Amino acid sequence: MPFTNTQVRLASRPKGFPHETNFRVTSEPVRELEDGEILVRNHFLSLDPYMRSRMSEAKSYAASVALGDVMVGGTAGEVIASRNSAFSVGDRVVGSYGWQEYGVSDGRDVRKVNGKLPLSAYLGVVGMPGVTAYIGLYDIGEPKAGETVVISAAAGAVGSVVGQLAKLRGCRAVGIAGGKAKCDHVVRDLGFDACVDYRAADFRDALRAATPDGVDIDFENVGGPVMDIVFSLLNKFARVPLCGLVSQYSATEPYGMRNFHSLLMNRVKLQGFIVSDHATRWPQALADLESLVAQGKVRYHETIAEGLVNAPRAFLGMLRGENVGKQLVKLV
Amino acid sequence: MPFTNTQVRLASRPKGFPHETNFRVTSEPVRELEDGEILVRNHFLSLDPYMRSRMSEAKSYAASVALGDVMVGGTAGEVIASRNSAFSVGDRVVGSYGWQEYGVSDGRDVRKVNGKLPLSAYLGVVGMPGVTAYIGLYDIGEPKAGETVVISAAAGAVGSVVGQLAKLRGCRAVGIAGGKAKCDHVVRDLGFDACVDYRAADFRDALRAATPDGVDIDFENVGGPVMDIVFSLLNKFARVPLCGLVSQYSATEPYGMRNFHSLLMNRVKLQGFIVSDHATRWPQALADLESLVAQGKVRYHETIAEGLVNAPRAFLGMLRGENVGKQLVKLV
Repeated sequence: MPFTNTQVRLASRPKGFPHETNFRVTSEPVRELEDGEILVRNHFLSLDPYMRSRMSEAKSYAASVALGDVMVGGTAGEVIASRNSAFSVGDRVVGSYGWQEYGVSDGRDVRKVNGKLPLSAYLGVVGMPGVTAYIGLYDIGEPKAGETVVISAAAGAVGSVVGQLAKLRGCRAVGIAGGKAKCDHVVRDLGFDACVDYRAADFRDALRAATPDGVDIDFENVGGPVMDIVFSLLNKFARVPLCGLVSQYSATEPYGMRNFHSLLMNRVKLQGFIVSDHATRWPQALADLESLVAQGKVRYHETIAEGLVNAPRAFLGMLRGENVGKQLVKLV
Repeated sequence: MPFTNTQVRLASRPKGFPHETNFRVTSEPVRELEDGEILVRNHFLSLDPYMRSRMSEAKSYAASVALGDVMVGGTAGEVIASRNSAFSVGDRVVGSYGWQEYGVSDGRDVRKVNGKLPLSAYLGVVGMPGVTAYIGLYDIGEPKAGETVVISAAAGAVGSVVGQLAKLRGCRAVGIAGGKAKCDHVVRDLGFDACVDYRAADFRDALRAATPDGVDIDFENVGGPVMDIVFSLLNKFARVPLCGLVSQYSATEPYGMRNFHSLLMNRVKLQGFIVSDHATRWPQALADLESLVAQGKVRYHETIAEGLVNAPRAFLGMLRGENVGKQLVKLV
């Protein structure tokens, strides 16, 4: 085959915050297709916080990436060769081919994209992050009109959708994000009622002021001291969809949480979840999200790095919160 | 009226672990009944960990006890005078008259006891603690046969019932208690599969050895470092009925919890609850528990202090874990 597949592999396990040297760029020829297989040219790679956990040996959701293996990750691309009758050249597909330019599989691990949105949207608002927001807020958070929803990492791929879905249910949406620019974006471009800068000295007071009726749902993406402060504002019978703890993924020592007792005193329901456990809900979630985006009722933003070799740097930037909206790498 | 009502009042708010000087014993004449009222001679006062929270001004489940007021608490006794047609002299009733020998009310705040068990049982295994165990384990814990249930404060009024109910559902019941004597009691007298002494130097290893298939339900009564260790053993999709945090009620600084991330990684459902929120479930729970006790399928033990003046000392002992089973004060 004429194709050379550039890949990013895990070179070493990070201690604490990762570094570009934890990754290694390699290339190899794409192998010949066997009967029943497809070859996909990946156009976009999705970068997501969960990948930091996969770099460690520690127990997490799923198996670690083995040293030397291609990093895992969601991809969106186009079928460029097919020996599978269910796929034609030109089909747009979303899969999990990882940090590489090409993917070969039997097609059972991809879904065809038939919608009209740009391909990248199917890795974000109408993909895993959007479904995460949808299931976490609607199924676990159970929002009711008039309630207050606080969303950490509000400018991120998941948080940005959570707040907009909360608004559509008649809730007050209060974001938490790092820095004034992101907070302005969350309110101005995404329509949240308020957004509070967790880096500001008056964060605690500002969050309290932004939630005058307390917090009914904490859609938790971050953990650590920011979550601890949100916990101090929870109302009776609050719900905490526990989606991520990005502040902790690179911590060498876990943050010692102080307001755990609020979960008892306020009879809170907290549920850790991962969107892949909820496979039966994906079709409805994707259909609803696609419709909402098409109608302009849910908006999305992307931060796009160019070229696979820049994926490690973009990934580190995302862990530092430098992205706005969905972090992607453009591969073509 | 000829009756003198001895009472225990909150004299001052404790800083950290309470002291007998935080209480004051007083007495006053019982007032005349008005139309519709009953007079109850309390035979037993229930002492429970939640009372520690009521002694503080800090936000908790319910309002604090005001300085100078009679301490709140569950009571069981006998109607000795009635101007309410729904009650006759001699009726046995359970109510919340607090730390005093007599109670006067319109009767709407008591329930008549028609069963054949000793009166004290209706403050324990067939009362609030038993219903707490029942609702927490069955409704929130959702135990399935073959699962492992870990119960902290296993020798206490709630924990002792939780483990027995878990066994009846075909679960492995593993208690946590302080000291060898209590652990022996939990296994020998209550039928738990194992009980681990949290004061022992090898607690962590012993708990791991006692839960070879991990932990599916953590019925949490204690919090602090013991809970943190249990969290490190949770299985995927574990449940945590969060019933109490007795190790924290007198803490001047909250324990900094380190294994919170286990709730995310294992997709755990944790729910803080208080039994009074679940009023619709009480009749079924009480009926089931009374039947199980009458059949000898659920056993109970009591630690009984004599005389109201000894209630403060007994209360402090209970907070230190000196009781086995339900802590009561006998008033007659």
